[in-house]
Amino acid sequence: MTAQSKSRKPRPARPAQATAASQPKVAPVPTPAAPPASAPVAVTGVGPQVVGLPRGFGRIPVAKVSPVIEGGAYPAKAVVGELIPIRAKVFREGHDAVNASVILSDPDGVELRVDMVPVEPVGLDPWEAWVRPDRAGDWSFRVEGWSDPWATWLHNAEAKLPAGVDIELVCLEGRALMERTAEAAEAAGDPVEASILRATAMLLIPQRDPSDLLEVATGAGIQRAMKAYGPRDLVTPTADFPLQVDRRQALFSSWYEFFPRSIGASYDPATKTWTSGTFDSCHTRLEEVAAMGFDVVYLPPIHPIGTAFRKGRNNTLIPRPADPGSPWAIGGPAGGHDAIHPDLGDFAAFDRFVAKANSLGLEVALDFALQASPDHPWVTTHPEWFTTRLDGTIAYAENPPKKYQDIYPINFDNDRDGLYREVLRILRLWIAHGVTIFRVDNPHTKPLEFWAWLMREIRTTNPEVLFLAEAFTRPEMMHALGKIGFHESYTYFTWRNEKWELEEYLTELSTEMDSFYRPNFFVNTPDINPAYLQGGNPAAFAIRAILAATLSPAWGVYSGYELFEHEPLKAGGEEYRDSEKYEYRPRDFAAEPNLNLLIGTLNQIRRDHPALQQLRQISFQHAPHDQVLAFAKTDGDDTVVVIVSLDQNNTVESDVYLDFAALGLAGASSVTLRDELTGATFTWTDRNFVRLTPAAPAHILHLVHQG
Amino acid sequence: MTAQSKSRKPRPARPAQATAASQPKVAPVPTPAAPPASAPVAVTGVGPQVVGLPRGFGRIPVAKVSPVIEGGAYPAKAVVGELIPIRAKVFREGHDAVNASVILSDPDGVELRVDMVPVEPVGLDPWEAWVRPDRAGDWSFRVEGWSDPWATWLHNAEAKLPAGVDIELVCLEGRALMERTAEAAEAAGDPVEASILRATAMLLIPQRDPSDLLEVATGAGIQRAMKAYGPRDLVTPTADFPLQVDRRQALFSSWYEFFPRSIGASYDPATKTWTSGTFDSCHTRLEEVAAMGFDVVYLPPIHPIGTAFRKGRNNTLIPRPADPGSPWAIGGPAGGHDAIHPDLGDFAAFDRFVAKANSLGLEVALDFALQASPDHPWVTTHPEWFTTRLDGTIAYAENPPKKYQDIYPINFDNDRDGLYREVLRILRLWIAHGVTIFRVDNPHTKPLEFWAWLMREIRTTNPEVLFLAEAFTRPEMMHALGKIGFHESYTYFTWRNEKWELEEYLTELSTEMDSFYRPNFFVNTPDINPAYLQGGNPAAFAIRAILAATLSPAWGVYSGYELFEHEPLKAGGEEYRDSEKYEYRPRDFAAEPNLNLLIGTLNQIRRDHPALQQLRQISFQHAPHDQVLAFAKTDGDDTVVVIVSLDQNNTVESDVYLDFAALGLAGASSVTLRDELTGATFTWTDRNFVRLTPAAPAHILHLVHQG
Repeated sequence: MTAQSKSRKPRPARPAQATAASQPKVAPVPTPAAPPASAPVAVTGVGPQVVGLPRGFGRIPVAKVSPVIEGGAYPAKAVVGELIPIRAKVFREGHDAVNASVILSDPDGVELRVDMVPVEPVGLDPWEAWVRPDRAGDWSFRVEGWSDPWATWLHNAEAKLPAGVDIELVCLEGRALMERTAEAAEAAGDPVEASILRATAMLLIPQRDPSDLLEVATGAGIQRAMKAYGPRDLVTPTADFPLQVDRRQALFSSWYEFFPRSIGASYDPATKTWTSGTFDSCHTRLEEVAAMGFDVVYLPPIHPIGTAFRKGRNNTLIPRPADPGSPWAIGGPAGGHDAIHPDLGDFAAFDRFVAKANSLGLEVALDFALQASPDHPWVTTHPEWFTTRLDGTIAYAENPPKKYQDIYPINFDNDRDGLYREVLRILRLWIAHGVTIFRVDNPHTKPLEFWAWLMREIRTTNPEVLFLAEAFTRPEMMHALGKIGFHESYTYFTWRNEKWELEEYLTELSTEMDSFYRPNFFVNTPDINPAYLQGGNPAAFAIRAILAATLSPAWGVYSGYELFEHEPLKAGGEEYRDSEKYEYRPRDFAAEPNLNLLIGTLNQIRRDHPALQQLRQISFQHAPHDQVLAFAKTDGDDTVVVIVSLDQNNTVESDVYLDFAALGLAGASSVTLRDELTGATFTWTDRNFVRLTPAAPAHILHLVHQG
Repeated sequence: MTAQSKSRKPRPARPAQATAASQPKVAPVPTPAAPPASAPVAVTGVGPQVVGLPRGFGRIPVAKVSPVIEGGAYPAKAVVGELIPIRAKVFREGHDAVNASVILSDPDGVELRVDMVPVEPVGLDPWEAWVRPDRAGDWSFRVEGWSDPWATWLHNAEAKLPAGVDIELVCLEGRALMERTAEAAEAAGDPVEASILRATAMLLIPQRDPSDLLEVATGAGIQRAMKAYGPRDLVTPTADFPLQVDRRQALFSSWYEFFPRSIGASYDPATKTWTSGTFDSCHTRLEEVAAMGFDVVYLPPIHPIGTAFRKGRNNTLIPRPADPGSPWAIGGPAGGHDAIHPDLGDFAAFDRFVAKANSLGLEVALDFALQASPDHPWVTTHPEWFTTRLDGTIAYAENPPKKYQDIYPINFDNDRDGLYREVLRILRLWIAHGVTIFRVDNPHTKPLEFWAWLMREIRTTNPEVLFLAEAFTRPEMMHALGKIGFHESYTYFTWRNEKWELEEYLTELSTEMDSFYRPNFFVNTPDINPAYLQGGNPAAFAIRAILAATLSPAWGVYSGYELFEHEPLKAGGEEYRDSEKYEYRPRDFAAEPNLNLLIGTLNQIRRDHPALQQLRQISFQHAPHDQVLAFAKTDGDDTVVVIVSLDQNNTVESDVYLDFAALGLAGASSVTLRDELTGATFTWTDRNFVRLTPAAPAHILHLVHQG
């Protein structure tokens, strides 16, 4: 049996939909000789698709297909409208021409063909096509390698005609190929191309001047017709690989984190008691957060907090009566993960909070910390969900010899079915109350297969729901969490301060990790007060905000950042002094100085520029100064060049070299750039001078004109 | 269902067979609680095994398993007695200890467990085990990740006991683990270990001094017992991956190529005719080849040669009547690929030739060039096995506008079944006449799937038969040929002359490519007269022979090399002048000067040293001089250090630094080395001085003593 005869279930072809772009830009073309149109094949596909796996080389070998995650066990990830590369090694025996296509299958099973092109270094046989899925759902793709008789003939004609070799035969073969292609065009309902092909065939007259014959063979019209309907022999498909297309916010979003209990909290010195902030007292703050351009508000756990072994201010072991405890010590008499802390309000108040947020264009992300305080209802109702030690006690969290007695970790292996069902119930409860994103606390301390199962279940009913992994651990686990389904992840960004570190990390994120791990660059968190910021220098806060907001399509700010909060609990440590984790922290967000304006500007620039809403197309530009980071991002026609000083204390001056060719500006002698931070306009060549100061540490330059 | 409950077909365990070695050296240990012994499960496995593929992460994640070829579609390759690394990334959630084992399955399906160990850099979670398969056949392996309660306990004990924390509980848990392990030892029929475990458990008395308790927990006896019978929880197996173990000659062999028609050929000036050499006239030459220490004689095609478009001397288009033609223009009235050129003798003569070779310890490798002269019988009996062009003629080989009209390429797609069957018949014919190796001409010009099928078929009946790919093409195809089944391949060695090129190439061969591509370093071929040799300097020939014979476990020499033949047909080209491909080339192999003695010495050194019979364990050593290449190879207790000058014209002097630690000589202050080329003995430290001359361009140093 030849590869050609491998039968594939015919599917309706969807010609020329604008959902795919190849690189260089080539319009998608219809599959020739398409099977008769019929209703699209419905695919129930909400969970990961079951896919065949590649089983070795076929007639036309296609290898190293990407993006493929763990052999196809998990889907590669993209978002709606994102330009993503599909790559493979394609090669063949002998000297005949090889070619390749991507067959993209949308969530309804409708197929679209996109031509691949060979790319550098050609000696290593890489091919690629860039595609842009136009809606969310479970897509798939395969690569087809094929023999290209027209390219083979053209290569021969170009070698033989000028040399006067085999002219009669070359013309005969060329005419036959054109006739064959005309038939395919006719079958596809394109009589015009068919006529062009037939007429061109008549021009291949051996007696003509060879250069005239070559002109006939290489004309734009015939090339276009061949590209659309030309013969594809020995078509050899790979397996179909899953591609999960999420809503755009899975990649591009701006997060703001605050503790609702702090917003509007007040202290009565007379009674030495605190009145907690509530969901209802947060509405004004939601308006301010929306005004700064954020689109996600993320709340630490909002559940009842245990009192057993409660932590006091600054993580002390003996709390004062007024200390509210850590929101991550979940569970008390008022309930567990399915309850709301009575101080914050009830479900109706939560619903009002969500409605207010949504009315402002904000989504609500809830913390999901799968652990319990000793007072959690589960401890008595389901002790099997914890680990009972040989002395009969329930195991608390430990990092021996340190003990975290306020936290009981979950045991996932004692009652898998019961626990899994309960967790699913809880998430569905919060989804029913409008939560669309879960920020998962320490997912790397729970089994991977649990998360894989949970996210698959949620995706079945709520594909719009997103999960952010708060994992700070070794690379293999970080990667694996992304592979099994987390839509986004915390990153190493807070520890990447040097220019080489940032360049190396972003290169890794945007190439090796781009199809399974989506970074969310938080500039700070309640757990991380970065060393770079601990001097309290406003320039440092501006620099890190600019880096996060422009390097990563998703970024996040934990409240207090805009007020330059920076005191560490201990020198050399990363905990905040007077950490909000253990106490109320009402703030005057209008106090001067603050970063509100810069943050709002950054979020507006991000909304204006598709280039900043994606990660895959980033290129670092050469700036000799080691405290000047320069990079460009591009999406379609939008190009943004960012130049940032990493020196929070000193003015730096440097040349910046723009790689015009790599930016698609080959041939340009200059470009006009508008600084989106200041409105100033510059004309730059491929070598430019910048001067950056602590007060104005960056340019965010939009390419508005090419000269 | 938990991962633990995934049922696997129980197989008999084979305890402690000496077929596996881990790195660092750890004796294989029996699987605890082995199922009752029964007859080994017979596996018919002579073709590639059908294997499951990894389907994502399990309870204990195991990823990036190697060696796995194209997702398990093809077997990884090893030879009998070869030390091979099995690697994986193994990690888990949280803080409990993770561990991993390799389960190796021999051709009878008998399983053997080998412990894996974590290796550097530990932050990236790599684990490995080195195994040494002890016989040929279709093996398989899987990796099992598991939770290690003993290691978890030990880690806790080491943190808690000295701190005086939870001493009672730590003792309780330790005793329970020892009791559980004692039961496993008992079940495995090891009452002694069971007793040791039970007695040790009694020593964990909380009232004792903590340092005494730690001593109990970390004693050698208890560690050994735990390694053998300790608990393995949440065992999570990967799929089983195929491992094809070939006979040793697939990796380690020394090839000599000659044209039988030249051996004993004579020219009669009177009649201007040649008398061809014959199989029978080669017997003496076989003795000489064996005396030089070779183990394979490789013959260019021995079939009838076409006369249509026959090439004359020096590849001219007009042959003289006496010109014998190229052996690769296969087929004439006397037959095709299943016939012998009448000038060489008949099948009986061929059988005598093979018998003589075998009696000398030589295998016979036959060229298999799947192409035809226009006079080949297939052209008339099976024109469908060629490509008929639109003008009715059969397509000859072309590189437009160049034509190779003496060669008709095969068309593999017209009559797949008929052609495939015929090729299989031909190979079986030659195998029946004692051919054990096929050197396949230009396999990259034929479909990969054809070769995959053919080698699978041959392996079913003749697993001892080996195939050498004569492919000089792009890396993807070179790799693919190895992956689909070629046992060995020609290489880029002849074009790697600089030190950095050799280091880079050998590193690639010995790491990335080690499990699918076995190099055979030919110093020359009838098609390749390397530029480095064209000056005719005997030192150049010695240097390249030493490099090939020591860098690669397989190397090859085409006759004439030992006589320093070096004249190119054209300056800048690689064809030999008066190439033997187109004429008789009788030689006086005893003529002085020659390389016979050096070649014999090299082959003897290769036989004496297992280190030179393998590729995976090679480490380049630092020599500041860029014309001095230094490397070490190791296998088990055998270490050979090679220092070669790459300068064929000048004396070079350099320091050579030996990396004692990397060579397993940590702590040594000096080593005693014996030069296997000269017998001289040296005492070297980690820095040494060498002086290499064109007359003595290398040291091949055997490590005989560590001081």
